[in-house]
Amino acid sequence: MQEAAERFGAQCIVVAIDAKRQTAEIKRQNEEEAEAWKVYIHGGRTPTGLDAIEWAQRMEAYGAGEILLTSMDRDGTKEGYDIPLTHAIAEAVTIPVIASGGVGNLQHIYDGLTAGGADAALAASIFHYQEYTVRQCKDFLAERGVRVRF
Amino acid sequence: MQEAAERFGAQCIVVAIDAKRQTAEIKRQNEEEAEAWKVYIHGGRTPTGLDAIEWAQRMEAYGAGEILLTSMDRDGTKEGYDIPLTHAIAEAVTIPVIASGGVGNLQHIYDGLTAGGADAALAASIFHYQEYTVRQCKDFLAERGVRVRF
Repeated sequence: MQEAAERFGAQCIVVAIDAKRQTAEIKRQNEEEAEAWKVYIHGGRTPTGLDAIEWAQRMEAYGAGEILLTSMDRDGTKEGYDIPLTHAIAEAVTIPVIASGGVGNLQHIYDGLTAGGADAALAASIFHYQEYTVRQCKDFLAERGVRVRF
Repeated sequence: MQEAAERFGAQCIVVAIDAKRQTAEIKRQNEEEAEAWKVYIHGGRTPTGLDAIEWAQRMEAYGAGEILLTSMDRDGTKEGYDIPLTHAIAEAVTIPVIASGGVGNLQHIYDGLTAGGADAALAASIFHYQEYTVRQCKDFLAERGVRVRF
C-alpha cells in the first residue's frame, strides 16, 4: 500500500480548468495590464467570470491534488499550448499542473514542460495515425535534458 | 531536484483517450460478448476504430506516464463516470488512470476511485457555483476509507 502510494502517489482529485484569453477586455481596462484568462465550463461554452489564476489558487487552497489546465483558444489547433497561460498557472500554484490544448508536435510538449513549467503534458491526437510515438517523444525530450517519467 | 521528483513524480506525458461504448455493434456480433469501447478523437467526433483497452495498453507499452480516460457517453451528463470502462482500463494497464466524464456529485468520485479503480478523479463543474468544495469531497472520501492526496 505504501509502495503503491510512493509509486503513483495516493489517489487524488484533479480539477479541470478550461481557460480563455481575455486580452481585448483587459486592454480596454488598462493598456499596460498583463494577459489574463477567464474560466469557462460546459466545454468552453459558459463563462464563469472567474479569473483562471485566482481560481487555480482557490482550488489548491481547497485541496485539489492536481490541475488539468486546458487552453480553449488552443484546443484542437495543433499550434501548441498557451505557454503564457501555462506558465502563469504553474507559477501561481504548488500542485502539479497538466498542460492541455493545442499540441501538434514534440516541440510543443517540450515547450509546455520547460517554458510553460508544467509537470505533465497532455496529448491525444498526435499519437494517433503514427504521427509520433510516445517513445519518440521521450527521446526528443531526453535529448533536450527534460527528465521524464515513463 | 530529487525531492521535487519524489513529491510530484518526474514530468510525464499524459495520453488522453476519449472512449465511446460500442454495445450495439458488439451485441450484433455476439450476444454473449462483454462491453467494448472505441477510441474517438477531435472531441469525440472522429472514430479511430481502435479498441480503447488495446489502445491504452499500447500507449503504456510506448511509454505513456498516465492516461486521462474520458467517457464520451458520460461527459457533461452528471450521471457519473462510466465505471465498467474505467475499471476495464485500470485493470488493463499499470500506469495511473485519471477518470473523467460525467461527475455530478461526490458519490461519483468515490465510485470512480473504488469500483472504477482509477488513481485520480477529474472534475470541473461540480466545484463551480459552490455545489461542492474540494474539501467536502476529501471529507466524503476519507469517511468512506479512500486515501486521498491533497
